[in-house]
Amino acid sequence: MINKILIKNVQLDMRPVDIYIEKERIRQIGEQLDVKADKVIDGTDKAVIPGFVNGHTHAAMTLFRGYADDMKLMPWLEEKIWPNEAKMRAEDVYWGSKLACLEMIKSGTTTFLDMYQRFRATADAVNEMGIRGYLSACCFDRFDPVLTEKCKEECERLYRVAEDYGSRVQYTVGPHAIYTVSGELLQWIHAFARERNVRIHLHLAETEEEVRGSVEKFGLTPVRYLYKLGVLSPRLVIAHGIYVDADEIRMLADHGVKVVHNPASNLKLASGIRFPFVEMKRAGIQVGLGTDGCSSSNNLDMVEAMKLAALVGKAWRKDPEVLTAQEVFEAATAVGADILGLDAGRVEVGRLADLCLVDLKQPAFVPNFNFISNLVYAANGSCIDTVLCHGKVLMENRKVPGEEEILEKTARLAYDLIKR
Amino acid sequence: MINKILIKNVQLDMRPVDIYIEKERIRQIGEQLDVKADKVIDGTDKAVIPGFVNGHTHAAMTLFRGYADDMKLMPWLEEKIWPNEAKMRAEDVYWGSKLACLEMIKSGTTTFLDMYQRFRATADAVNEMGIRGYLSACCFDRFDPVLTEKCKEECERLYRVAEDYGSRVQYTVGPHAIYTVSGELLQWIHAFARERNVRIHLHLAETEEEVRGSVEKFGLTPVRYLYKLGVLSPRLVIAHGIYVDADEIRMLADHGVKVVHNPASNLKLASGIRFPFVEMKRAGIQVGLGTDGCSSSNNLDMVEAMKLAALVGKAWRKDPEVLTAQEVFEAATAVGADILGLDAGRVEVGRLADLCLVDLKQPAFVPNFNFISNLVYAANGSCIDTVLCHGKVLMENRKVPGEEEILEKTARLAYDLIKR
Repeated sequence: MINKILIKNVQLDMRPVDIYIEKERIRQIGEQLDVKADKVIDGTDKAVIPGFVNGHTHAAMTLFRGYADDMKLMPWLEEKIWPNEAKMRAEDVYWGSKLACLEMIKSGTTTFLDMYQRFRATADAVNEMGIRGYLSACCFDRFDPVLTEKCKEECERLYRVAEDYGSRVQYTVGPHAIYTVSGELLQWIHAFARERNVRIHLHLAETEEEVRGSVEKFGLTPVRYLYKLGVLSPRLVIAHGIYVDADEIRMLADHGVKVVHNPASNLKLASGIRFPFVEMKRAGIQVGLGTDGCSSSNNLDMVEAMKLAALVGKAWRKDPEVLTAQEVFEAATAVGADILGLDAGRVEVGRLADLCLVDLKQPAFVPNFNFISNLVYAANGSCIDTVLCHGKVLMENRKVPGEEEILEKTARLAYDLIKR
Repeated sequence: MINKILIKNVQLDMRPVDIYIEKERIRQIGEQLDVKADKVIDGTDKAVIPGFVNGHTHAAMTLFRGYADDMKLMPWLEEKIWPNEAKMRAEDVYWGSKLACLEMIKSGTTTFLDMYQRFRATADAVNEMGIRGYLSACCFDRFDPVLTEKCKEECERLYRVAEDYGSRVQYTVGPHAIYTVSGELLQWIHAFARERNVRIHLHLAETEEEVRGSVEKFGLTPVRYLYKLGVLSPRLVIAHGIYVDADEIRMLADHGVKVVHNPASNLKLASGIRFPFVEMKRAGIQVGLGTDGCSSSNNLDMVEAMKLAALVGKAWRKDPEVLTAQEVFEAATAVGADILGLDAGRVEVGRLADLCLVDLKQPAFVPNFNFISNLVYAANGSCIDTVLCHGKVLMENRKVPGEEEILEKTARLAYDLIKR
């Protein structure tokens, strides 16, 4: 049993330190620490960063990677995704989530906020793979009162199911979107989440169509509609949030609502390019980063998400000075952890030991005038060499135990699912 | 001496084949070839693709990677880049170019179109590293007739210098831009390039400022100005070409001018987001892809360039169906080779053996419903396992001979240069 880990001679903010970890937390950071450890990791030619927090994904959708690309949103969903999702069994979700966890570990993500069906299958995958999952059981009643009641029961049931797992698996509620979930259910979830102190994870203001639909159906734009329902709260995490005006940004800020930006998905599905990162931050909103599911953005690489957020954010504003490398790095780490109420996202004594070592011996980090700039603008997820989560080593020298079995199994399973 | 290479059991268009290479060319492609070779490469669990053609870069600028980011174009150039470029010696350009070649090989690029100073230093680096460089000696007269004559002499001289090298080093002329090069020199270069049958490599229509300046100074937008000068030709390769209207696209097409799109640089410097890829292709223009230099786009990863071109192209048009994975893949390979008049860019019998093997045993290629989609949307340059150029193996198992020395040397040299 390895309970004490010492990382020797690793670069932190471009100076060499030792990091001592006991159980799940960072206990000491300093020069040449004189401590005994069960395991010593050589950090020479490596830099330490917090594990990334992927603020929005649908893990099991790795199984649909590359199955249907370059299509418009509705035919893509109706012809390709939904018919195959309907065929998914618990085993598919379990293996798809394992593949997702493997991919996340290999690109430095230690925590993710998920939304999908079959809670236990994803929870088992997360549990076994060693990372942290904030798992939102996706619920929608399609404005049908019978389903509304079923959804409430399901929320209560899954909240109890989550108690079977340790602290790395956290239950969150996942109302899908305002066009699939009734106002009554949103209000019930708001109260339920307050009582249980859990996060709510909702797609919102992702497309212009959604805004038009909201105005037609509810007479209000999406955020105003939520405001009227009284469901804006610090527990609410909104995925996307592209189409919000200045007053809506104010409403979100006033209620402590969190937002997760998903640049790859927003670009590939052509949902929108003008995400108001700067305005939201200025208003005091915590803005994190996510990849979305692999069927829309095709990978789970948070390094790529940082780069896309910065580059595209600069471009549409015609201002290369905004969205600096440091800002998007914080969004992908410290802010992401804060959004989930997780005591991680920073390499600091007392924090949870969710850490990555970055291999500096590659062209992306040569020269190394500015490590964060190299990480965001030059590197990609393959620069991650070693990953720790909750004080346990999940990857060393880019090897994750059992990865070949996961790749083989999921390659077959994905084909079987489509043909089923 | 290895003259005959056999790649066994590699995936080509998703079916397994053997590929036989003799000297610099692909000689046979088929199932279970019965040939003797000096070297056999096991292609199991790998896919073969043509080496990428990076259509626009400034190789030696790897030395400025991450030195100055998140800045506006002119202060960045005037305060950070130009003062340091002025200090560069031949040794700096040589090592910076070696680092660039290393980075390109490691991400699957076998040919690049460069523009920089100190031709011989870059040519030596290319020659030693084994890839192909189309090297444009950057020239500008700043509208000074004395410098105009010097530039002409320099073009003649460097054309002869290039004869010292083998076919992997090709001389091209590099007039910097219409705001640094006089019309007279552009016309002389046009005639010179026709006579010598070499390419001309020119920055054009990169920013709105450039267009405004062109209208002020010449009374015409950039492409119209070139048209009036009579310098549009099939030998002209334009880097950027963002700000061109429908008539200008027609002019470029009518004269067989080639265009290279550089999405990462255009985004990061906020030059512009609306590159008219679709309109240019429809008009019959050959449109390639490039990374630009590492001080503006920070890496030389053509896989990333493909992804950015596709994602951003879809997003600003609000159309997820345009710029498919297949289209950007062709731009980065076959079209790139055609632009340079190079008999490569395709895995076909008779073509030059400029090839990459992609490692399929990683999450980005699982499941593998569509290899090209996975390559473009899910992978990054680190998926490249093996690289051949001109029938020689440059990388195997991601190892390039001498790479540690290059990384160590350039890391030190870059710091020395800044402090010098």
